[in-house]
Amino acid sequence: MLNLSVPENQVAGHKAKEGVNGPLVDDSGKFYKPLQSDERGSNEVTFYTSFSSDPRIPHNIRSFFPIFHGTSVVNAADHLVLEDLLSAYSNPSVTDIKIGSRTWYPEASDDYINKCLQKDRESSSISLGFRISGLKSVGASNSCWQPHKKFLQSLSAEDVKLVMRKFVSSDGNADNPDCVFASEVFVPVLKQLLELKKWFEVQTIFHFYSCSVLVLYEKEGKKRAGAVVKLVDFAHVVDAKGAIDHNFLGGLCSLIKFVSDVLAGVDGKVEL
Amino acid sequence: MLNLSVPENQVAGHKAKEGVNGPLVDDSGKFYKPLQSDERGSNEVTFYTSFSSDPRIPHNIRSFFPIFHGTSVVNAADHLVLEDLLSAYSNPSVTDIKIGSRTWYPEASDDYINKCLQKDRESSSISLGFRISGLKSVGASNSCWQPHKKFLQSLSAEDVKLVMRKFVSSDGNADNPDCVFASEVFVPVLKQLLELKKWFEVQTIFHFYSCSVLVLYEKEGKKRAGAVVKLVDFAHVVDAKGAIDHNFLGGLCSLIKFVSDVLAGVDGKVEL
Repeated sequence: MLNLSVPENQVAGHKAKEGVNGPLVDDSGKFYKPLQSDERGSNEVTFYTSFSSDPRIPHNIRSFFPIFHGTSVVNAADHLVLEDLLSAYSNPSVTDIKIGSRTWYPEASDDYINKCLQKDRESSSISLGFRISGLKSVGASNSCWQPHKKFLQSLSAEDVKLVMRKFVSSDGNADNPDCVFASEVFVPVLKQLLELKKWFEVQTIFHFYSCSVLVLYEKEGKKRAGAVVKLVDFAHVVDAKGAIDHNFLGGLCSLIKFVSDVLAGVDGKVEL
Repeated sequence: MLNLSVPENQVAGHKAKEGVNGPLVDDSGKFYKPLQSDERGSNEVTFYTSFSSDPRIPHNIRSFFPIFHGTSVVNAADHLVLEDLLSAYSNPSVTDIKIGSRTWYPEASDDYINKCLQKDRESSSISLGFRISGLKSVGASNSCWQPHKKFLQSLSAEDVKLVMRKFVSSDGNADNPDCVFASEVFVPVLKQLLELKKWFEVQTIFHFYSCSVLVLYEKEGKKRAGAVVKLVDFAHVVDAKGAIDHNFLGGLCSLIKFVSDVLAGVDGKVEL
């Protein structure tokens, strides 16, 4: 018997609504993501299946991806069964950052391209190479700062730095963020992003469109797991056809520069 | 008195046509580029003027850019006066590679964006992060291989590697390129591209849309200058607004991977 519940800390992506299945978690650390009925669902299953068994993926890179446990029918609907990335935390702060200035893949239809292009232009994707899709910064006594998606999408470079500083502060709602968690979070995050970057400079297996970097950490709580970087959302991964994923890599390098600038602002100079 | 002539080795860009001014060179190593009458002309002058005097540009990075000698009226038309990059060579092989999967800048008009997007999709820009805009590989006894622009634009990853191998072969027209110049050219080219990359990972001054990397070398000739990488075409450079140029950097990293793959195929493994 599965004991399933709605996840508490999802900051972006599809959620359960009237008549629509949302993601679920069980108490053994698994995350059940409803398969989208169109090609996105089957594409994501294809990606996880092929990624799981691909001998070319280095061990250190695998750890950035949720573990794949196959698919399963829950409440009469197909689900991807994945590692619940949040199960290691009791009260995580989390942000979802969609990487790449372009969220559409070359073979997409004109309609799909136009839809994505408009979102990319309206958000910070075109200007910064990424957009913050969701963010939750836990505060004292169960308060939290969870800015609205619309606010997050149109951020300038300076806005992004302020949001990042609030993300690693004891109270995200404060006007002058204290950044007390900056080193504890962004030093390991920077290290992990640079590890990912190294792989993206050479890998010609996949191109990851509309894929997100998740950053997770815990301010206080029984479990107190460290800050980690994970990759999620692979409904638009395509074959690399012999080239590196320059779109993802460019956005990743931009994010790295922002993280190191925020760290430098708090701690002094950071060497990349 | 200026002794001006039409440059012999231009492989891409605007050329003189009936009623249209083309670029000129003099015998003192200067290149006269006609100013486009629309905002592109003034934008390129603005770029060169601001770049020349910007103290934030490191010395090693300056050497990738043509020296700027101001503007001048020649044949009743305004010209940019630049260093003639080809004057160091007697019979150069040269390629012009437009960097970036996106050639339009965020503030462009919808019409301009649509025009650029169509070219980016039709060419290899979207898939590879760059497109080869022109190429001339000098052969024996004044022959040369100069593929048509149309042929170059729709190259796959494998095609690009073949074209690159032909570029560093004694006869680009041969079906099986001998790659005899591969190390002599691509070892220093790779070193220079990696130097550029290092700067693009941190610089938040300019975004270079529709800008090209030129690769120049000489197979034989009295002057026998070494292989160099230069940047040209700055009519679409815009203010970085606090973010790195993720679009250029992504394309540059893709080009670096291709160059090192070609070198590895000829010489064995190359460490980046």
